[in-house]
Amino acid sequence: MMRKHLIGLLAMVASLAMAGPAFADDPLRSWNDGASKTAILSFVERVTDKNSPDYVPAPERIATFDNDGTLWSEQPMYFQLMYTLDQVKAMAPEHPEWQTTEPFASVLRGDMNGVAAAGEKGLMQLLAATHSGMTTTEFSQQVSDWIATKRHPTSGRLLTDMIFQPMLELLSYLRDNGFKTYIVSGGGIEFMRPWTEAVYGIPPEQVVGSSLKMKYEVGDDGIPRIMKLPELNLNDDKDGKPVGIQGHIGRRPIFAGGNSDGDFQMLEWTTSGDGARFGLLIHHTDAEREWAYDRDSSFGKLDRGLDEAPGRGWIVVDMKRDWNTVFPKQ
Amino acid sequence: MMRKHLIGLLAMVASLAMAGPAFADDPLRSWNDGASKTAILSFVERVTDKNSPDYVPAPERIATFDNDGTLWSEQPMYFQLMYTLDQVKAMAPEHPEWQTTEPFASVLRGDMNGVAAAGEKGLMQLLAATHSGMTTTEFSQQVSDWIATKRHPTSGRLLTDMIFQPMLELLSYLRDNGFKTYIVSGGGIEFMRPWTEAVYGIPPEQVVGSSLKMKYEVGDDGIPRIMKLPELNLNDDKDGKPVGIQGHIGRRPIFAGGNSDGDFQMLEWTTSGDGARFGLLIHHTDAEREWAYDRDSSFGKLDRGLDEAPGRGWIVVDMKRDWNTVFPKQ
Repeated sequence: MMRKHLIGLLAMVASLAMAGPAFADDPLRSWNDGASKTAILSFVERVTDKNSPDYVPAPERIATFDNDGTLWSEQPMYFQLMYTLDQVKAMAPEHPEWQTTEPFASVLRGDMNGVAAAGEKGLMQLLAATHSGMTTTEFSQQVSDWIATKRHPTSGRLLTDMIFQPMLELLSYLRDNGFKTYIVSGGGIEFMRPWTEAVYGIPPEQVVGSSLKMKYEVGDDGIPRIMKLPELNLNDDKDGKPVGIQGHIGRRPIFAGGNSDGDFQMLEWTTSGDGARFGLLIHHTDAEREWAYDRDSSFGKLDRGLDEAPGRGWIVVDMKRDWNTVFPKQ
Repeated sequence: MMRKHLIGLLAMVASLAMAGPAFADDPLRSWNDGASKTAILSFVERVTDKNSPDYVPAPERIATFDNDGTLWSEQPMYFQLMYTLDQVKAMAPEHPEWQTTEPFASVLRGDMNGVAAAGEKGLMQLLAATHSGMTTTEFSQQVSDWIATKRHPTSGRLLTDMIFQPMLELLSYLRDNGFKTYIVSGGGIEFMRPWTEAVYGIPPEQVVGSSLKMKYEVGDDGIPRIMKLPELNLNDDKDGKPVGIQGHIGRRPIFAGGNSDGDFQMLEWTTSGDGARFGLLIHHTDAEREWAYDRDSSFGKLDRGLDEAPGRGWIVVDMKRDWNTVFPKQ
């Protein structure tokens, strides 16, 4: 009797241990209970359960996430734009002509209206000056050096601490369930790759982003190098996201997460495939802990997505309501 | 005493079991003992042994392989060229004008000299006609249908059986040792992806190749699709291979295998990185079991590579001498 009781107890303990974190612990602990969290958990259960009609074999469990505004903040401006402005300032001593040439002069005066007035053409000039003309190795080093110490202008946190704890948990939860997680961002692919593995657990080969053309050459020193050229290769935004996904991954994702109308086509492409699909939009509703913006924002404008999400079955995450934590504890 | 003996025996059995296939079995059984095989085994041991000065952490163990002539045959012509010619013939009834328009007319007459005379421009016309103007899904289906039954003109084997057994073993051996194996081919990325996972164990997202530009659009039927456009995006050959590697993988490989001068820059880029590196060239020396060709071949010309391999420390695999089996047993 005593022995039977002990064996029963041991079996119970063993089954608890085997159920793992999902039972003993909450894999999405920064997500409040509610429709968003329930939808995620239910989707993952359905596509991983071999007896479910929605079962998806592991190799096809591709999940793609936007970066700016989806995995980390994007206010008061895209962080890569901060990098661009900082680089222009750092390079200015070697470019005296920039003092009187737009859009560089506006950057050096700290006149953001002047930068904005230069429009898309001006932005491309700034990008070309700071993102091309060096080797991929040099660029990677420059980004690594900058991001190691760069702090956010209002929070004072390192930029790599301006990431969303609930999204880190979602990435881990998906990976623990056999998903391959990708970034598919309008941001620069070479700007993200130096740090995404350490920060998000996403290796360089699973980062898709906007890119410049490149050229392989052997230098006069006999050393091979890959030069970054001042010419756009892929604008990985809007219509460009499904193209970037097809080019890099070659499979249609079954899960896509974004936060702006730049992600619309990625979610549309993802969720229009056969079988179970998941579209997720982060709605920035929390002016106190992060920022509140949507239809009228210069960065991360979310308008069409908000209108069409319900009809398309996309889950809109209300940051204020759905997340009990925004940034990782420090 | 007896008990101690038994425990010792058990420990021995356990250690044998743990040593795994590398001990109990030969992971490269289609490779004859010799310098090539020894170099491969020694390299993999050095980069995977934590106590070796050449140790490389698993995420950085990237291995890239050319496809045509490296993983499968490329004679009497690239298999993708066979596909192109077959497609022109299949599409001809809808294009009566091709009967009198070069290079199509030559294809339809079976006049390969005429096709060759049309040069690179003619080839691009044939590629545009057969590889663009459809969705990525349609193209993938066309390739899958064709390759399921297409037999090699001289061997009579399915093309997917014209693969090299020793290279299959090498791919598996590398993966078993924590490598991520990629194809980096001058061939079309979308032409390879439908079948590389089944044939080589290499998933679509680990295939890099030449590509056409693509366009995302929503059809009149409301269904999103990605169209293949008749414009080259990347020529993933020669200088283009390191560019394709950087664009897709974002890390420099530590192991690269090829067979022609189109692979020269990939091997150069790979083996000029810091630390232990491996460059491998397949030399087609076996006219009896496969083909013998190098410096003067129209397909898979190997000239500079042969000259420079010794000085660069690249291993040249002599197919006739180094491989005891060429194709998988049927």
